[in-house]
Amino acid sequence: MATFSCPAVSFSFRCSYGSSSNGNHGDYRVNINVNGNASTRPFKQHALVNEIALQSPASLANIQFLENGHISEEKIRQRIPTKKQLVDPYRQGLIVERGVGYRQTVVVRSYEVGVDKTASLESLFNLFQETALNHVWMSGLLSNGFGATHGMMRNNLIWVVSRMHVEVDHYPIWGEVIEIDTWVGASGKNGMRRDWIIRSQATGITYARATSTWVMMNVQTRRLSKMPDEVRGEISPWFIEKQAIKEAVPEKIVKLDDKAKYVNSGLKPKRSDLDMNHHVNNVKYVNWMLETIPDKFLECNKLSSIILEYRRECGGSDLVQSLCQPDEDEILFTNGVVQQNLLKNNVLGMDTMTYGYTHLLQTKGGTKNEEIVRGRTRWKPKI
Amino acid sequence: MATFSCPAVSFSFRCSYGSSSNGNHGDYRVNINVNGNASTRPFKQHALVNEIALQSPASLANIQFLENGHISEEKIRQRIPTKKQLVDPYRQGLIVERGVGYRQTVVVRSYEVGVDKTASLESLFNLFQETALNHVWMSGLLSNGFGATHGMMRNNLIWVVSRMHVEVDHYPIWGEVIEIDTWVGASGKNGMRRDWIIRSQATGITYARATSTWVMMNVQTRRLSKMPDEVRGEISPWFIEKQAIKEAVPEKIVKLDDKAKYVNSGLKPKRSDLDMNHHVNNVKYVNWMLETIPDKFLECNKLSSIILEYRRECGGSDLVQSLCQPDEDEILFTNGVVQQNLLKNNVLGMDTMTYGYTHLLQTKGGTKNEEIVRGRTRWKPKI
Repeated sequence: MATFSCPAVSFSFRCSYGSSSNGNHGDYRVNINVNGNASTRPFKQHALVNEIALQSPASLANIQFLENGHISEEKIRQRIPTKKQLVDPYRQGLIVERGVGYRQTVVVRSYEVGVDKTASLESLFNLFQETALNHVWMSGLLSNGFGATHGMMRNNLIWVVSRMHVEVDHYPIWGEVIEIDTWVGASGKNGMRRDWIIRSQATGITYARATSTWVMMNVQTRRLSKMPDEVRGEISPWFIEKQAIKEAVPEKIVKLDDKAKYVNSGLKPKRSDLDMNHHVNNVKYVNWMLETIPDKFLECNKLSSIILEYRRECGGSDLVQSLCQPDEDEILFTNGVVQQNLLKNNVLGMDTMTYGYTHLLQTKGGTKNEEIVRGRTRWKPKI
Repeated sequence: MATFSCPAVSFSFRCSYGSSSNGNHGDYRVNINVNGNASTRPFKQHALVNEIALQSPASLANIQFLENGHISEEKIRQRIPTKKQLVDPYRQGLIVERGVGYRQTVVVRSYEVGVDKTASLESLFNLFQETALNHVWMSGLLSNGFGATHGMMRNNLIWVVSRMHVEVDHYPIWGEVIEIDTWVGASGKNGMRRDWIIRSQATGITYARATSTWVMMNVQTRRLSKMPDEVRGEISPWFIEKQAIKEAVPEKIVKLDDKAKYVNSGLKPKRSDLDMNHHVNNVKYVNWMLETIPDKFLECNKLSSIILEYRRECGGSDLVQSLCQPDEDEILFTNGVVQQNLLKNNVLGMDTMTYGYTHLLQTKGGTKNEEIVRGRTRWKPKI
């Protein structure tokens, strides 16, 4: 069994980062945890709390680590706070919007971009998920679950997404510094809305907007649940009215059937597609949808918006089928050259240069298929 | 065409991050660029350099952005320095090891872990790639290519990896803060070695070590190239002797044939598997290899080391076959319960609790197959 020494756990801002570029590892660590005690005296994985309390009482005060009087190694390594934090220097996050919104500065990484060096839609979805969880982390409400609050854990509840709408004006590029704002609001009696804005950190120009709706599911029965008062009490103080995307009447997505033009059957979730909630992460759905669109179309067009309506969770053993149906005038859009010229000259007198697909993911069962998610995507030609 | 306002480009450390949690976006940006001029006066995408020079001459001096007398929008957004930087506050990186090594602090993100909340091997490979590129970024040598230096760009050369060896003692978990050190050294006359160490930021305990060998390829002929003196002059001042993994005699990997126990045919690269060099990123190879191992084995074992010998690049249109062959005594290791009990009681008197697989990825051609990569993995039972 591995042993771990006691870290100087501290969420305060580290101010001497720049001065520690001397290659001295010990000094560097001490500098970072300016309020902590950087002692590295080792202790056993399940040392008694008293032993820890002696080492760094002030800095450990906010950390949730008590499990039957013992410290959980996992909790020490995760450092999840039980009180609201204003700044997280490690994640480059901070609380904004009069104390209830979250902003994180992120550099687009080399493996988050495609051949054209722009961030993939999957990367944007990943960053939405990451910043949402970090927002809950900062709130002091995060249990050890996948974004679940303490009240949700006591009620065996997890979050499931029911709808997601993303609009992308510009894709950030490799190495670009972006800011992601996220906040939450009420959605009906039992749901929660979560929105995001992605901006260029340098110019403030908005690159993308997103809104989503979340409901609670009982982790044992896998049935949707009302929001318990206990949970409403935890999260409603964080609700604000602001909306990243104003939708007067949300677009209705028709259900595709076997007559859809493009069908990709036999999709099988891999072990690596499952998330901490043990079901297929919704980001994987997006990939399955987009991979069903012909390569030729993807080569000359860039997604400008996507709406997803989630119907059912997808388990690790489900066989999945992805269907998609292009809007009319497809030929115009599947040949890059013709399309560009026609659009440039506005031969068809079109007002907008976008094009749409309708999508469906469903499980392929023996007796009947079950809808996992319906989708609508809109596309713009690459310049 | 979008216009971009001029950022206050600065690589110096921002010291007032914590005080900007007031939700005022303008103040926040000014605070971050403490040495910059946070004017957001807009300028056209291809404004003349003179115009920029007037705005923030000192802070822009290190930035490579001149293209026929014009500023490239991409280069402004990427902010690639042309002189050595000691600290990168956005990436949380700094130069260590007497000025030639690089250290980056990273928080393990929610989408980088699997169902057991530990980072996947793919995530570790991604972080190796990311920190390597950020090291070159800090050196001032990065051209706009995928880690290529200015001298390499002038000679139409790109980096290709020829060997990779990773050892993992502990997998970092979701939310854990880790430090990644990376540095380079000579490898023969024409190659470069790159090593990494991943440590717990809190305790300093080493979680993983890796070493790799890189050679240069002509991007047009796709043939390996000698290292031009110009390039050696750029990179050799960064070479150090230290080795993350000491390999007296590198392990030889046998070539598998069609008699291999597990064969996964018909693997087809997706658009999203291609990297900025327009070939399948080597991280994808690792996934193809691991997915060929039976799920039952993966459920009860964790990879402790992997060696990859790269033979040929894989293009977007190649059809790939993944073969793997377990070492003997496989039954012992594919049944979790039996295995755990036998190992706990050391029934077989084994010195080590590891188990091995040999791997091969090859293209499936009409007339002959061509090796892409050979691999060896070793595994330990999950506790």
